[in-house]
Amino acid sequence: LSGPAAVAADGALQRAMDELLHRAVPPTPVYELREKTPAPAESQCADFVSFYGGLAEVGQRAELLGRLAQGFGVDHGQVAEQSAGVLQLRQQPREAAVLLQAEDRLRFALVPRYRGLFHHISKLDGGVRFLVQLRADLLEAQALKLVEGPHVREMNGVLKGMLSEWFSSGFLNLERVTWHSPCEVLQKISESEAVHPVKNWMDMKRRVGPYRRCYFSSHCSTPGEPLVVLHVALTSDISNNIQAIVKECPPSETEERNRIAAAIFYSISLTQQGLQGVELGTFLIKRVVKELQREFPHLEAFSSLSPIPGFTKWLLGLLSSQTKDHGRNELFTDLECKDITEATGGPTHETLKILLSSSEWVKSEKLVHALQAPLMRLCAWYLYGEKHRGYALNPVANFHLQNGAVLWRINWMADSSPKGLAGSCGLMVNYRYYLEETGANSTTYLGTKSIKASEQVLSLVAQFQKNSKL
Amino acid sequence: LSGPAAVAADGALQRAMDELLHRAVPPTPVYELREKTPAPAESQCADFVSFYGGLAEVGQRAELLGRLAQGFGVDHGQVAEQSAGVLQLRQQPREAAVLLQAEDRLRFALVPRYRGLFHHISKLDGGVRFLVQLRADLLEAQALKLVEGPHVREMNGVLKGMLSEWFSSGFLNLERVTWHSPCEVLQKISESEAVHPVKNWMDMKRRVGPYRRCYFSSHCSTPGEPLVVLHVALTSDISNNIQAIVKECPPSETEERNRIAAAIFYSISLTQQGLQGVELGTFLIKRVVKELQREFPHLEAFSSLSPIPGFTKWLLGLLSSQTKDHGRNELFTDLECKDITEATGGPTHETLKILLSSSEWVKSEKLVHALQAPLMRLCAWYLYGEKHRGYALNPVANFHLQNGAVLWRINWMADSSPKGLAGSCGLMVNYRYYLEETGANSTTYLGTKSIKASEQVLSLVAQFQKNSKL
Amino acid sequence: LSGPAAVAADGALQRAMDELLHRAVPPTPVYELREKTPAPAESQCADFVSFYGGLAEVGQRAELLGRLAQGFGVDHGQVAEQSAGVLQLRQQPREAAVLLQAEDRLRFALVPRYRGLFHHISKLDGGVRFLVQLRADLLEAQALKLVEGPHVREMNGVLKGMLSEWFSSGFLNLERVTWHSPCEVLQKISESEAVHPVKNWMDMKRRVGPYRRCYFSSHCSTPGEPLVVLHVALTSDISNNIQAIVKECPPSETEERNRIAAAIFYSISLTQQGLQGVELGTFLIKRVVKELQREFPHLEAFSSLSPIPGFTKWLLGLLSSQTKDHGRNELFTDLECKDITEATGGPTHETLKILLSSSEWVKSEKLVHALQAPLMRLCAWYLYGEKHRGYALNPVANFHLQNGAVLWRINWMADSSPKGLAGSCGLMVNYRYYLEETGANSTTYLGTKSIKASEQVLSLVAQFQKNSKL
Amino acid sequence: LSGPAAVAADGALQRAMDELLHRAVPPTPVYELREKTPAPAESQCADFVSFYGGLAEVGQRAELLGRLAQGFGVDHGQVAEQSAGVLQLRQQPREAAVLLQAEDRLRFALVPRYRGLFHHISKLDGGVRFLVQLRADLLEAQALKLVEGPHVREMNGVLKGMLSEWFSSGFLNLERVTWHSPCEVLQKISESEAVHPVKNWMDMKRRVGPYRRCYFSSHCSTPGEPLVVLHVALTSDISNNIQAIVKECPPSETEERNRIAAAIFYSISLTQQGLQGVELGTFLIKRVVKELQREFPHLEAFSSLSPIPGFTKWLLGLLSSQTKDHGRNELFTDLECKDITEATGGPTHETLKILLSSSEWVKSEKLVHALQAPLMRLCAWYLYGEKHRGYALNPVANFHLQNGAVLWRINWMADSSPKGLAGSCGLMVNYRYYLEETGANSTTYLGTKSIKASEQVLSLVAQFQKNSKL
Repeated sequence: LSGPAAVAADGALQRAMDELLHRAVPPTPVYELREKTPAPAESQCADFVSFYGGLAEVGQRAELLGRLAQGFGVDHGQVAEQSAGVLQLRQQPREAAVLLQAEDRLRFALVPRYRGLFHHISKLDGGVRFLVQLRADLLEAQALKLVEGPHVREMNGVLKGMLSEWFSSGFLNLERVTWHSPCEVLQKISESEAVHPVKNWMDMKRRVGPYRRCYFSSHCSTPGEPLVVLHVALTSDISNNIQAIVKECPPSETEERNRIAAAIFYSISLTQQGLQGVELGTFLIKRVVKELQREFPHLEAFSSLSPIPGFTKWLLGLLSSQTKDHGRNELFTDLECKDITEATGGPTHETLKILLSSSEWVKSEKLVHALQAPLMRLCAWYLYGEKHRGYALNPVANFHLQNGAVLWRINWMADSSPKGLAGSCGLMVNYRYYLEETGANSTTYLGTKSIKASEQVLSLVAQFQKNSKL
Repeated sequence: LSGPAAVAADGALQRAMDELLHRAVPPTPVYELREKTPAPAESQCADFVSFYGGLAEVGQRAELLGRLAQGFGVDHGQVAEQSAGVLQLRQQPREAAVLLQAEDRLRFALVPRYRGLFHHISKLDGGVRFLVQLRADLLEAQALKLVEGPHVREMNGVLKGMLSEWFSSGFLNLERVTWHSPCEVLQKISESEAVHPVKNWMDMKRRVGPYRRCYFSSHCSTPGEPLVVLHVALTSDISNNIQAIVKECPPSETEERNRIAAAIFYSISLTQQGLQGVELGTFLIKRVVKELQREFPHLEAFSSLSPIPGFTKWLLGLLSSQTKDHGRNELFTDLECKDITEATGGPTHETLKILLSSSEWVKSEKLVHALQAPLMRLCAWYLYGEKHRGYALNPVANFHLQNGAVLWRINWMADSSPKGLAGSCGLMVNYRYYLEETGANSTTYLGTKSIKASEQVLSLVAQFQKNSKL
Repeated sequence: LSGPAAVAADGALQRAMDELLHRAVPPTPVYELREKTPAPAESQCADFVSFYGGLAEVGQRAELLGRLAQGFGVDHGQVAEQSAGVLQLRQQPREAAVLLQAEDRLRFALVPRYRGLFHHISKLDGGVRFLVQLRADLLEAQALKLVEGPHVREMNGVLKGMLSEWFSSGFLNLERVTWHSPCEVLQKISESEAVHPVKNWMDMKRRVGPYRRCYFSSHCSTPGEPLVVLHVALTSDISNNIQAIVKECPPSETEERNRIAAAIFYSISLTQQGLQGVELGTFLIKRVVKELQREFPHLEAFSSLSPIPGFTKWLLGLLSSQTKDHGRNELFTDLECKDITEATGGPTHETLKILLSSSEWVKSEKLVHALQAPLMRLCAWYLYGEKHRGYALNPVANFHLQNGAVLWRINWMADSSPKGLAGSCGLMVNYRYYLEETGANSTTYLGTKSIKASEQVLSLVAQFQKNSKL
Repeated sequence: LSGPAAVAADGALQRAMDELLHRAVPPTPVYELREKTPAPAESQCADFVSFYGGLAEVGQRAELLGRLAQGFGVDHGQVAEQSAGVLQLRQQPREAAVLLQAEDRLRFALVPRYRGLFHHISKLDGGVRFLVQLRADLLEAQALKLVEGPHVREMNGVLKGMLSEWFSSGFLNLERVTWHSPCEVLQKISESEAVHPVKNWMDMKRRVGPYRRCYFSSHCSTPGEPLVVLHVALTSDISNNIQAIVKECPPSETEERNRIAAAIFYSISLTQQGLQGVELGTFLIKRVVKELQREFPHLEAFSSLSPIPGFTKWLLGLLSSQTKDHGRNELFTDLECKDITEATGGPTHETLKILLSSSEWVKSEKLVHALQAPLMRLCAWYLYGEKHRGYALNPVANFHLQNGAVLWRINWMADSSPKGLAGSCGLMVNYRYYLEETGANSTTYLGTKSIKASEQVLSLVAQFQKNSKL
């Protein structure tokens, strides 16, 4: 449809939405009857669920959610009235009971009306799962700028709060995946593997076989349904190369315990985007560490081997800005420039941009050698020095640092897959978990925003700073 | 201990309590950092749990809870400040985002500080179970008047709200109990049977055997742990006698489906008092009805066979007040008075009070006959006419009426056990569930407080009213 | 019924039996078609099962089994014919294939026809269970002399052989019973406890609680169904008193591993008499020992604490025979006689017989003291010296000695329950399992019939022999 | 190794084998002690198991098995002696007990000594599984002519008899495979699919998805381990094409019961060759039929859609023999010959042989058309008329006919896969199970060897006979 017909259809849909919302969103009861109000009929909420499910396009869903957020939030008049009541009691003190009730009325007025809808949906069969999907849609719609504004942000916050309560760690189970697990679970895990994609079933079998562990969290109401998945390699030392983990076969079919000294978290993936921000990953890592310590009391080292998404893009941006600013060169030393130019046979920045974009640079041994020192240095700075609101800009770094890990080692040619070259010039990083210190590290990072890093990283950062006039 | 030593010991304990609370209750973060504040160390909350667990006496626990409620609630100054902020925006309108954030700050200020403690405890292993017990203690302490006041009531409300979220019906499982269930479960159910106590194991075996069903709800995080238990008898018509259910053996070892036309809910018990008010019973009945309909699609009648706790006490009170008011007689007709006097050989009210208190009256066939009509009438009134805040005074009646059942039939000599005679002069009542109408009935009862009753009951009520000058 | 009517009825029943057997027992196929003969219709075997099930009286069942054994055994003519064939080949040698086939024909001829019936029944749902019950009936009928003769003994042997194949240890599971086990299992175990009867459910709970273990074997086709049950107490040293195990409460609710140094097998019971002679007990003890070693690697001592059924009876017999033989006294020393006479105040043997029969003797402290030495001595001889076909007469002794245990310690006043006093004058015995030596002990006992005993036992035996002129 | 060194090594191995056998095979006890002989030490049998497991080559295994069969069978002298004893009693009758014991001694003497070894191995952990593998090796060695002779055949018979007892239907479980089954099970089933190979995991997913059922039998001691696997398609009528089942997607994700009227067994595979002849397939089909009838009470038709292995080979043989016998033509009518020659452009038989061998013929529409009638006719004869010892030559036909199925319909172009064209010129056949008649059909076929076939088949056979002068 296009033109007037589409507009008319659109108008009809919007009217249907408004009708639905007025029918389905339960009215806020008066304060006195808040405990005596019967739940709305199941069909009322189920109506919303099926209407929403019938909206195939993300735009239509966004439209409905926007209307819900805008039209069924807090009654600001009520809030103001109750606020005034509280303030008045402040000036004319009475007994505590009166103040506490006034505050409770105010608290009650501050609950958005749509929260009642979500609350009742959560009690339906499959209701919580529906709300997780709804939030995933909302996040997608926000990312696509299909909906915007403070009301939508508030609704997202309300949903996140509710989900955080329901997916509280007390209700999460840790499940281990092996080749004896149901095919359905292995298929889901295989499909949700975002970091190092699974090629085929033998590839998957290896990731749950000897010298490997695969765990997931599930909610106790839906056992067997992965929410967040963690892959671990059991190795003799802290790995610096991902292909050795996901490609090569383990040394033997039966694990020899004395060959295992380190646990490498090489992939963590959220399977349901609607649960972003609910802290599932942190919890899973903590539980897995406990589980591994129980199984291997002698394990010494716990570390991630993590991708550095965004590094190549950041680097290309840097090269561009410097190119414009021709003449300046703050990224490479003169000697490095010379080596690079020799290897590429063209003007450093321009050629580099092309070669880095296409991952062609790895084909030249010379160039690879010439780039190692500067890229390591730049990457250290990217992870350590680039910030967003004071915290690490790189989201993976921010995740592990919040958990209390240390920015431990940057690894050259650690992921030579096309994805690894494209995303981070083949570099990867270990965030190491010193179990005794994660609590303190986490508090420090969150409080003071200062990043704890190893000698290697700090030395690379110092080289960068010395070199750079940024 | 007594005297000054006890006082000193008490003082030491109270100081220890204050120290604990200041250490264990996490401070409220500033609004801006609310998402970036790391969780307190597990040990901090675990401290509270173990300190509390070490308090053996209910009085000491009450003391601690009272101090927590009083000293770690809402910061009223903050609330007033944020209220003022909201009000000011009301007068000088700005864009929506500003108002919404002001409201969110206010909402944040209205969260009592102890909520953070409860929140973090809930994430510990066994934490939710601890909080259920804590609320049970709090309710007991309130009942015993060991703690009082609005702060404690508020804290109870906060706990109830949190528990309602966690024990939401989406997270509850329905489990059936049979003789194949673990002994531990059967022992728990046997011990928690509050309505018709279980004598021994063969008694229990019968209650889970043929023509009987026993179900419970459990939380998905603790499968196998009964929260609320429902016993059902499968009969050919709506039962009017409890001994036929809990004493007599079923007609045969294998159920004949065509002998089953009614499902009688003859006992429902909450096993954990800390979950009072969380609506587990209502949910359980709904689920069991569905389950039974699935198993026996031809089932026609669903009804309770319920006790009438408090009826004898209410009746004795009535007799007393009438005795004082000598000369008046509004409970019995003249003919009834004559029959009763003949049967007892003494002044009606005084003798009746003695005989009813001791359950001795059932030994006289004559008296039993003489009392049937008036007691049926009085009981109908007790259930239908006696109110608390407009709703049925009798808590069992109120429960079933809220669920949408109908006050269907009052049964004479329905429970001749000592407990039944002592509590309700042997009377029991059926609350019948007409499945098509429960939703509407529930809404009506909760909204207008009017009770739906059968012809039999209404007729008895009318007789009462005709007779009484109350 | 009695007289002619009963005879007639009997005649009718016997005709019905014969008809059934001819219908239900499949004919032996000719040798050449033995692999091509289709199985009889399921209904044919099911007929036998239901007919048999309909025989309520043990006598009727015995009658049917007798007819089956007698009338449907081996075809002796066929056996003779094939034997002759084999012998002829012996005289006129031909190639191996001819001899082997002749032997195979002979082997085939030696299979009783009823084996085919049992074989096909075993394939029915519940068929093996039926055959176990059938053999139990057969054993009971033999014990009651309701059936006799070589044909019945042969059929018992055939059944035992088949059951031994089916209940081979490769198909048995070891299951542990705890208070979490299904009530049905605990009820069965409670009812089948033959050695130290279970009083009530709290008694049962103790036997599966801390410092106790209860295991059973089940067949893999019927998990959860106990075949043979073993109760174990975990103690600090080898127990000499059964009441300390079955009556007293364990030291604490949680087991302290360092208080556990010995495993005492204090009861082993076969739940299904049809499995007598199938070696389930031996297997169960072996598996439990392995299981306990896995759980408690430091366990030092494994021993039974066993009853001595038949000792009192044997002793009374001895007293009687000596009484007849008046004047002789080979059971007690003169000093002992004097002490006993003093304590009883009557002629030694006569009075003793009365007091031992009635267990009255334990009421006299003096008599108890006087009897300790002689009864210990006599009991040692009863266990060590009394034989049946060269093996220990006492069946419990024979069981443990076959398993390779050592006759280790005789315990005075070890079972003061009425059952213990009546059966063995309160004496009990430990058969100790030295795990390194059980294999060798078993072979020695079975081969040479010599019993391995401890110093204590051998010394008591020597005292007996010195004293006795038997 | 080759030459003298290999011979020497061979000699050493053979000596090691003999030593092992004398050590590991338990001696036959004397008759009187047969019940009192303790089991050999576990290590004795375990020795055999590990020695055997260490023999990597099939030839070495065959050698060991040959020596076991030859050297540890029946003691022919004993058999002769006991036979003589039985015959003597025949001539000089004594009481039954004497004869029965003599027969029992004879029976005992007829048990080969190696049976004791197998018996004890069966009790080891994993022992039965070992024996299944051992028999698989034995069958393979026989097929490869690595071992021969009556002793080996006898041992195979003994093993088959023992396995038949252990894998009796009373001990088999029916398990259904779905996408929720463990990956390991699905991988095993995928790998053991002999009839229509599984391409990849999505292929496998379809075979356990909607409108499909996959079942297997497992032994109760090893649940989850498939012994024999049956694939079923649920269709609206009896399928005549296998690609429609294994290639095409089902009509919808959720099964509509009213679209299901037929169950097509399209693949049955034994996963363990050592269980050949143990009748697992027949049992599985019976159980699956019951299961399907329970799930779909309205199911009307049960039928296989079966391959015809050997048909192409048989046909090529026929063509060859006729070619030699030139001039004769008994396979095709003159008209058919003309059409074929026209389509191929060469001499009928020679060209046909080439085209049929290479499956090239299907590329010519004309030829396909010309061959349909004669190949249908020839195939009908192949299945119906070609015999081995009187039973159907084709093993699949023989299997289903023994089960009581009817030779129902021959289907043209039913399997156009390379395997289908190569094996049976694309033809497939339905064996239909009329549930009421399978028992009678099975008995008839096994007894009289006559094949029950449909009109279609009989008519094709008649055409063949009319045409052929064979």
